[in-house]
Amino acid sequence: MASKVRLYVDHALGEGQSVPLSREQAHYLFGVMRLAEGAVLSLINGTDGEWDAAVIKAGKKAGLLQCVVQTRPLQQPPDLWLLFAPIRKERTAFIVEKAVEMGAARLCPVQTAYTQNADRLRIDKLRAHAVEAAEQCGGTFLPPVDGLHKLDQVLADWPHDRQLMFCDEMLLDKPQTLPALPGPWAILIGPEGGFSDAERATLQDLPFAHPVSLGPRILRADTAAVAALTMWQQALGDWK
Amino acid sequence: MASKVRLYVDHALGEGQSVPLSREQAHYLFGVMRLAEGAVLSLINGTDGEWDAAVIKAGKKAGLLQCVVQTRPLQQPPDLWLLFAPIRKERTAFIVEKAVEMGAARLCPVQTAYTQNADRLRIDKLRAHAVEAAEQCGGTFLPPVDGLHKLDQVLADWPHDRQLMFCDEMLLDKPQTLPALPGPWAILIGPEGGFSDAERATLQDLPFAHPVSLGPRILRADTAAVAALTMWQQALGDWK
Repeated sequence: MASKVRLYVDHALGEGQSVPLSREQAHYLFGVMRLAEGAVLSLINGTDGEWDAAVIKAGKKAGLLQCVVQTRPLQQPPDLWLLFAPIRKERTAFIVEKAVEMGAARLCPVQTAYTQNADRLRIDKLRAHAVEAAEQCGGTFLPPVDGLHKLDQVLADWPHDRQLMFCDEMLLDKPQTLPALPGPWAILIGPEGGFSDAERATLQDLPFAHPVSLGPRILRADTAAVAALTMWQQALGDWK
Repeated sequence: MASKVRLYVDHALGEGQSVPLSREQAHYLFGVMRLAEGAVLSLINGTDGEWDAAVIKAGKKAGLLQCVVQTRPLQQPPDLWLLFAPIRKERTAFIVEKAVEMGAARLCPVQTAYTQNADRLRIDKLRAHAVEAAEQCGGTFLPPVDGLHKLDQVLADWPHDRQLMFCDEMLLDKPQTLPALPGPWAILIGPEGGFSDAERATLQDLPFAHPVSLGPRILRADTAAVAALTMWQQALGDWK
């Protein structure tokens, strides 16, 4: 069951391409994973697919890889954004991880009325979680993670050709299916305290926003994110 | 946004029923949540629905509540078991939490060929996680958590009127929908290393087992659990 080490690098990948390693990457590959010169690992960079690469130089603080052959082409996920209100640190990390696994194309943290501790949100950490999830889930795409924006501003600037699936625990009477509208979509998951009455009223008036119920129980935000992504991928995405 | 404290107790609930508190419960209600005599909280016990109860005696090491009125009847989830291979401690806790939120009726840890550290599994801790999830998700039902059993034994003793949705990352060519068979069901989620060839062969020969694909990316076991529960609840469960 030993599987090849899989590493994300911020570097172009292509036949014969040399890829220098940062100190952290060298420590991980040669210190932690104990790869030696000549070993082969998988590389992804989010845009050039997956490549087998050989270890050319293995040092404690640096190293060099060389791409051998492309093992998988880039697989772009469907054009789906995930808008989510940051919650507790660990749970926010889980939302990012799950969104990458489930195939979201872009992650958009939004500040809602009941979002707490938004000032403590570390976008760099969320990006690191996205990289780790991409390495683990076998994907070749890395969704960008936006900075934090206010929900009302995001909705005011909304591209009107993009549909919005809006999940809310107050929507038990709402349909449990998505309208079969083609084109780009987004999913919006609220914070643990739900949306404010004003936010709910705004959302319900937007022509591109579609309320969807996630069943009769209250879901935590990270659970709701996976459930909503499942519904969308099944109905309109690449699970079909 | 302050919401009522919600507590699971292992005690009968009914009109006028007195409920004595353990030392830990008294510490939580009166030490942590600072409830005083006369305060009202919500109680669940997994079988008698949800009750408002008043604090009659508040002490540091003990306390007494009295049920006032039932606020919600028992809502049984559909007859769906979740069979899962234990993984790392924190992720196993997440599977339990998510299964309660998503409305599984029974949780069955199973030991598969590639299950690691099964001897370290603490069923008492999993039960505590289930209780905490039931308190938080607003449900009135608490799914039992079985002890650990070997998968091949579980399948040998299987009740043949129960269908089994079998999720496996090797099943990309399999249908992404469930057969619309009524009656009791179960979902089986494998460990991080997947199923062994022998397990896969056994499962594919069982008349009650239905392979289902969870999309083109590799999902972690906890993500797969939520995705499979979503698919099942939407197609055959109480999300309809």
